[in-house]
Amino acid sequence: MIQTLWLIGIGTGAPSHVTGEGMAALRDAAIILVPHKGDGKDDLAELRHRIIRASGSDARILPFDYPERDPGVPYLERVEKWHDEIARRWQKTVGTIHPDGPVALLVWGDPSLYDSTIRIAQRLEPQPDIRIVPGITAIQALTAAHAIPLNAVNGPVHITTGRRLRDSGWPDGVQRVVVMLDGDASFQTLPAANLTIWWGAYLGMPEQVLDHGPVAAIRDRIIATRAAARQRHGWIMDTYLLSKET
Amino acid sequence: MIQTLWLIGIGTGAPSHVTGEGMAALRDAAIILVPHKGDGKDDLAELRHRIIRASGSDARILPFDYPERDPGVPYLERVEKWHDEIARRWQKTVGTIHPDGPVALLVWGDPSLYDSTIRIAQRLEPQPDIRIVPGITAIQALTAAHAIPLNAVNGPVHITTGRRLRDSGWPDGVQRVVVMLDGDASFQTLPAANLTIWWGAYLGMPEQVLDHGPVAAIRDRIIATRAAARQRHGWIMDTYLLSKET
Repeated sequence: MIQTLWLIGIGTGAPSHVTGEGMAALRDAAIILVPHKGDGKDDLAELRHRIIRASGSDARILPFDYPERDPGVPYLERVEKWHDEIARRWQKTVGTIHPDGPVALLVWGDPSLYDSTIRIAQRLEPQPDIRIVPGITAIQALTAAHAIPLNAVNGPVHITTGRRLRDSGWPDGVQRVVVMLDGDASFQTLPAANLTIWWGAYLGMPEQVLDHGPVAAIRDRIIATRAAARQRHGWIMDTYLLSKET
Repeated sequence: MIQTLWLIGIGTGAPSHVTGEGMAALRDAAIILVPHKGDGKDDLAELRHRIIRASGSDARILPFDYPERDPGVPYLERVEKWHDEIARRWQKTVGTIHPDGPVALLVWGDPSLYDSTIRIAQRLEPQPDIRIVPGITAIQALTAAHAIPLNAVNGPVHITTGRRLRDSGWPDGVQRVVVMLDGDASFQTLPAANLTIWWGAYLGMPEQVLDHGPVAAIRDRIIATRAAARQRHGWIMDTYLLSKET
């Protein structure tokens, strides 16, 4: 049974992105639940194991399978059911074991940003003690790789998703927008005038690719780079910052 | 002369917040520039030295003084001049030394988020090679301490400053707003109805204080906690997430 659950942010690509707190938490965990995604992202599964090895943890590693999502169910309901089922699988995987320490999960980036793990953990019954260990997000990896500030001087920053950018266009009242969870290079749906992009994929990993410049000038180049990289690796995760000059 | 400059994000309060990459960068630096702020934030200066010691670095530590800001000059011009002067002081502090490795600066939080260090570095002439090492931001420390997601499911997040929140009110089209650089508890200027706050000060430090609840119910409590803590420590840094239920 899961009595204490630690969600450990592991950053975006390398064991060296994990904080000292994260490495210590991996060492102090009794059990680490590791997903078998079965979606071709084997590089990512291997990276989790590399980080666990790098920490020196001797926790018991228990793999679990992600359930399929039912495409026949409306989006929000589908996500709810999927989260319920994952919580059940965590509980089932730990089963009748009474771990003599915390159960841990490694979370890509930071557990608070566009990640479901906290929401899934909140479904566990009885509710375990939950501890979150922060991790470097793809946003910080992006700005570090480009050596740029995220915000203009004292300016606001808007973080959104590809879907929302497509559906709602440029958000009101901001000059800087970060786009995440974007499988479709949604910046191409925006009017490109006065728009600059800092783009990155596989951030922090050896495969890292970066590009930046006026959207009008480099839009097609990024789309081509993206398509080629996705074909080569079988998957892609990319993030970008847009700045609108007024 | 500064030929290679590393800006190392150190997170929000403890050596254990620094990533493996950050610790390695401190060890590989030849010189570390450490500010003497002279503004009563001695805890923070001491924390920098504690992190350097924890890294095992044997870099040469060179202190520099921050210049005064001239209150007679308009805000943006004042910031520009101040940054120019800090860049001059870095250069002067390193002086005629030819370091056999990078010059490093420790940056609170992450160098990209509401921090001037990148902008100051860009003023150095000749322009050094700049490398950014990402760090945990106060936002991640806040959401981790409260064990909450930053965004609603696939929802956007708006990051802004206290000043802007006071001047412009609630930003359009968002449910979640993070407020930073707020010396005045500016949430009290908003209509409190349907507004929930997750507040934190001294995040990640032993002095950490948290509070959360409906703004209407706990506004005065946070303001009192804030005032008492500021008096006790001589300084305060706080950050909060607001969520508007619709």
